[in-house]
Amino acid sequence: MQLAHGGGGRAMKQLIDLIIRPAFADPELDRCHDGAALAVDGPVAFTTDSYVVRPIIFPGGDIGSLAVNGTVNDLAMCGARPLYLSVGLILEEGLPIDTLRRVLASMHKAASAAGVRLVTGDTKVVDHGKADRIFVNTAGLGRIVAPTPIGPSSVRAGDAVILSGDIGRHGIAVMAAREGFGFETTIESDCAAVTNPVLALLEEGIAVHCLRDLTRGGLASAAVEIAETAGLAIVLDERAVPVRDDVAAACELLGFDPLHVANEGRFIAFVAPEDADRAVEVLRHHPVSAEALVAGWVEHGPSGRVSCRGALGVMRAIDMLSGEQLPRIC
Amino acid sequence: MQLAHGGGGRAMKQLIDLIIRPAFADPELDRCHDGAALAVDGPVAFTTDSYVVRPIIFPGGDIGSLAVNGTVNDLAMCGARPLYLSVGLILEEGLPIDTLRRVLASMHKAASAAGVRLVTGDTKVVDHGKADRIFVNTAGLGRIVAPTPIGPSSVRAGDAVILSGDIGRHGIAVMAAREGFGFETTIESDCAAVTNPVLALLEEGIAVHCLRDLTRGGLASAAVEIAETAGLAIVLDERAVPVRDDVAAACELLGFDPLHVANEGRFIAFVAPEDADRAVEVLRHHPVSAEALVAGWVEHGPSGRVSCRGALGVMRAIDMLSGEQLPRIC
Repeated sequence: MQLAHGGGGRAMKQLIDLIIRPAFADPELDRCHDGAALAVDGPVAFTTDSYVVRPIIFPGGDIGSLAVNGTVNDLAMCGARPLYLSVGLILEEGLPIDTLRRVLASMHKAASAAGVRLVTGDTKVVDHGKADRIFVNTAGLGRIVAPTPIGPSSVRAGDAVILSGDIGRHGIAVMAAREGFGFETTIESDCAAVTNPVLALLEEGIAVHCLRDLTRGGLASAAVEIAETAGLAIVLDERAVPVRDDVAAACELLGFDPLHVANEGRFIAFVAPEDADRAVEVLRHHPVSAEALVAGWVEHGPSGRVSCRGALGVMRAIDMLSGEQLPRIC
Repeated sequence: MQLAHGGGGRAMKQLIDLIIRPAFADPELDRCHDGAALAVDGPVAFTTDSYVVRPIIFPGGDIGSLAVNGTVNDLAMCGARPLYLSVGLILEEGLPIDTLRRVLASMHKAASAAGVRLVTGDTKVVDHGKADRIFVNTAGLGRIVAPTPIGPSSVRAGDAVILSGDIGRHGIAVMAAREGFGFETTIESDCAAVTNPVLALLEEGIAVHCLRDLTRGGLASAAVEIAETAGLAIVLDERAVPVRDDVAAACELLGFDPLHVANEGRFIAFVAPEDADRAVEVLRHHPVSAEALVAGWVEHGPSGRVSCRGALGVMRAIDMLSGEQLPRIC
């Protein structure tokens, strides 16, 4: 990759015509205009994330699949059916074209799996040493299908907190790939789209009040953020929260609390208490949430407090991390 | 700026709650959810651009105003009224908070001026030396108001090519700021939103076939790209193309062709020949396009050829640059 590939001239046109557009294969891109023209009907969800994960390839995924699934999941968390993604690439001079090809192919594959189209994009190239190989931004557009507003302000005391599966895999997988730890087993990222189970909850008429994917900061940060915004308290049952043995062992070795470790295919759903069992059942029909369970509940207060009942029945207070445990995991 | 500010924990929440959300002051951001929920009615335009300009502050603008105006203009080029922007920030560890504040304030000001809302965002922090101070991605959503499709495939032989004003200021302004050239006058970027004149063309019922803003690669690349996609030829009249004296002098000094130099508040419009004079008149009512004029026309072929009639009446062939003239101007 050379600076000229971002210069707006012949080299950039060749990069886009020969490498990028064919990789995404979408008729909107073939119109070669400044943006996509789309039919969208009704209320929409709009979201964005930049991805700066290091290394860009890790067990279970790469920055391409991450950039698609992460934004698809943010749309799902809005109670929306993901429809369209934009792709903004920032490439470092010297990046091998084959690496770019791999990332683009991975984006296309993840988008096809999630049922979204990559319809518009932009490519910039910066001098060697001014970026770290490749940064990807995706913005997403989805059609909101939830009948009532989904978000922290809809959470009510008494709501069940449903967790879609085991936690901590993504953060540990990235960390192990970055540092070259030789764990006995290869821990793979859980990176995946969670659209289908979320839409299933809504189609089944479950009273979903809030959804949140457990990315940076993990389950702990998600719970604290929602408790603070909603002005309510959340109690988690640590004994119910699944952590795979190899992830638990890695966390112990590294001094990490699994509650703070990032995931990319996990979410929590706040649902009316009477719908909790049915919600778990619906989620378990989908491979990505086959181990869903009730992991906690919401209480009136104190506002913003998250506590966790541990293995021995002792309650401990949960907070966001004040520092940085694991930078650049997404 | 520390890595912890991108870690998903308490430091990131403070950065967002105390610096970013107040700077943008939008109720959608105050919902603190994973995306914005928006009412959009009818066909929409969707676009994205990442901004990596160096230096991040230059005469006439900064990376913040650029990131808003650039994406607003891409929406306008789709014949759309810009409505909403997302903001993805990639910050380098060590970036002074005051620099971030300035960029955010500049984004807010530009968004207010352009009538768009900054409704959703994301912040990442990468280690010192792994980015260049600040990169910004904006994706934009607009309501298409053009009655017929706008794009290269709608261009017809005979169309007039209307240019909205003088060219070359943005590229030279950034170059001068970067290299510390002491030109006698300070050349300011033309960075501005062109929404109003574009919407005015559509409201007046002008038959607009294609619109293109003249960013990276300048007027030359825009014309070549459209000629190639449309399978038509374009003839430009160099004597009609306004270039300010100071910009022309700087180009001469640096060996640049003004046709290749970037702009951020200029566009070309392809309109039916019978509407050309009226289109120029409409554009001249708006300060940002007060010097609009007919700069060329479209011919049947040869497909993809752009030629330019120079000061002495001699025709020369125009192509995109094959290399890189001026990296990182947007």
